[in-house]
Amino acid sequence: MRNSRRGQVDPFIVMDVMEAARQAEEAGRHVIHMEVGQPGTGAPREAVERLARDMAAGPMGYTVALGLPELRARIARHYGEWYDVDLDPARVVVTSGASGAFLLSFTQLFDTGARVGLGAPCYPSYRQILKALDMAPIDIPTTLESRMQPVPGDIAAHVLDGLVLASPSNPAGTMLDRAGLEALAGACAEGEAALISDEIYHGIGGRGTSVLEVTDEAHVIGSFSKYFSMTGWRAGWLIVPPEHVRGIERIAQNMFICTSHASQRLALHAMDCTEELEANAAVYAANRALMLDGLPKAGFTRFAPPDGAFYVYADVSDFTDDSRAFAAEILDEANVAVTPGLDFDPRDGHRWIRFSYARATADIEEGLARLARFMAARGHAGAGAA
Amino acid sequence: MRNSRRGQVDPFIVMDVMEAARQAEEAGRHVIHMEVGQPGTGAPREAVERLARDMAAGPMGYTVALGLPELRARIARHYGEWYDVDLDPARVVVTSGASGAFLLSFTQLFDTGARVGLGAPCYPSYRQILKALDMAPIDIPTTLESRMQPVPGDIAAHVLDGLVLASPSNPAGTMLDRAGLEALAGACAEGEAALISDEIYHGIGGRGTSVLEVTDEAHVIGSFSKYFSMTGWRAGWLIVPPEHVRGIERIAQNMFICTSHASQRLALHAMDCTEELEANAAVYAANRALMLDGLPKAGFTRFAPPDGAFYVYADVSDFTDDSRAFAAEILDEANVAVTPGLDFDPRDGHRWIRFSYARATADIEEGLARLARFMAARGHAGAGAA
Repeated sequence: MRNSRRGQVDPFIVMDVMEAARQAEEAGRHVIHMEVGQPGTGAPREAVERLARDMAAGPMGYTVALGLPELRARIARHYGEWYDVDLDPARVVVTSGASGAFLLSFTQLFDTGARVGLGAPCYPSYRQILKALDMAPIDIPTTLESRMQPVPGDIAAHVLDGLVLASPSNPAGTMLDRAGLEALAGACAEGEAALISDEIYHGIGGRGTSVLEVTDEAHVIGSFSKYFSMTGWRAGWLIVPPEHVRGIERIAQNMFICTSHASQRLALHAMDCTEELEANAAVYAANRALMLDGLPKAGFTRFAPPDGAFYVYADVSDFTDDSRAFAAEILDEANVAVTPGLDFDPRDGHRWIRFSYARATADIEEGLARLARFMAARGHAGAGAA
Repeated sequence: MRNSRRGQVDPFIVMDVMEAARQAEEAGRHVIHMEVGQPGTGAPREAVERLARDMAAGPMGYTVALGLPELRARIARHYGEWYDVDLDPARVVVTSGASGAFLLSFTQLFDTGARVGLGAPCYPSYRQILKALDMAPIDIPTTLESRMQPVPGDIAAHVLDGLVLASPSNPAGTMLDRAGLEALAGACAEGEAALISDEIYHGIGGRGTSVLEVTDEAHVIGSFSKYFSMTGWRAGWLIVPPEHVRGIERIAQNMFICTSHASQRLALHAMDCTEELEANAAVYAANRALMLDGLPKAGFTRFAPPDGAFYVYADVSDFTDDSRAFAAEILDEANVAVTPGLDFDPRDGHRWIRFSYARATADIEEGLARLARFMAARGHAGAGAA
């Protein structure tokens, strides 16, 4: 049978890492997982209990395409509480995770061949979804000096139809502040490039600044998978300008019918579980402090200190020009799984590594100790060895 | 902000009907809902209870992109039990409803501009998803004589890159038998057109014949929303030839990450709840018998008798050339909500109406009585008035 060109999507290299880690564990080795991109915690306990009661009370049929009205209102309130932004619930669209939001947003905004800028390194699926829609992802190289984020001049330089920002960034964990967002939003407006702001890691490492604080002319994407710890339930949201709501609604009706009703109810309940969620966030904060101290001591000194999410993206070009082989060596010799940069940046990722600190603090301590021993054995002096 | 051309998706006219029905109810009128396209029943009771226990037992993180291995195996077993087809679980992909399956399938198979044939009338989202992906939906007019299904000569006549079949059809409820599927699959193979078979209504009106009984060279789409009564949970499946699995997996990783873990667990449990599901199916069978008797008596005689699903699609050109106005009159005067054919067939739908019999049997009886009085008052003699 036929195959399309657009369907020729790149494989995730991290999948090979995860498979190698799984085989190592099957062989009886104890592996520290610094490759994973998801919280180890589940949905808030009380929210799960409330959902179970909802499920017993009656059928969970289709909701309207834009989502349960009470959830849309609750998300709008969230923007008031976190960002002091007065947001009309009519602009909030509940989506099947951030993934669903990207499909809706790109379809609403861009036609075939559209040039959509991505700050490289970035979340690999931006690039692959754009390719699957026959649009043109344009990698914008970033630097440690710009903290791995695009700069305003990039929009005109790359002749963009749109720009995807991620603050905090995956894989770098760096955030854009209000001035940075204002400058980029201004450059997008000037260049008539649509602005899409991925804010799915807000709440992990602080609330951050939403692009909605500086402009309404953007698509803003949020998720219940990270701070709200609903990984696996596939619920997120998309906020669009008022004149885009009807268009997004029609696309959503056809592409999704609706987001899982149960996931929407759980999301509504999870938004009330602040105590449990803040306890989760405190673990990430402790882990980040350990990483910022431990990685330089182990010898990994070239990275932009992360503000949020649960990642550090380190330049390892002093040690290797093949991050894939280097990651394999770290797994083999130190029993720590890490992700080579190639998924995030096909051009320069061969000299970068992503470390995740999403797991338990004890695991992070042990992982850092193993990394320090690995580097010392290779003669790479860390900052702590001075 | 910008709008794409591909995002200019048509609105659903049924939404206007549903809104008008809602307003009628708000004004105190009692409306019979023959416009709805979803089961009135919820997920099987025991399956919901088992899911609640799963949820209490631990987090529901991401699954692998192709779905829980045990669910893929269970779906493969289902093809053995229902169709006597020996299906490798490796070919089964769990999807976010049939909607998700269409996105994956079209992306894997077709490039921009591909001509994909749809037997008109058909489920409107085929057409809209194809447009949103910048492909070319090609409406193939069907006839009462072909029971509203395409015929083999259509593939060459319309120079198709692909063909979407639906058996049972929505809106017509008609099925293709083994000989019909063989002939169409043969014509697709000869014309090098990809064959996509929508079998989401199987089990309602009998199990039907799966295209997998006649060829492995097809994409087959199933759903947990209809027979398995999991409406709102957004779970379905896609079966592809072995050489397409890796490609579909990569697209799914990027577009969806995974189908809701909880929905996958519920689906697994629902597949064990045969007794409750067969009781639901018996209601549809009783309703269909009432419709096949009552519609002609009311004066609606021109339709292909449905084999399955819960729809009848009737030619009303003896009474109107504006099915939208006619549907509005039926709602206003008879308090029965029905769907004008325009969503399913932009060209000829102005002279067709879809009746749904998804609701309780007492509602169907009352709806038919109201329709008979409406038609009699207009002087349209029914078969029962002879």
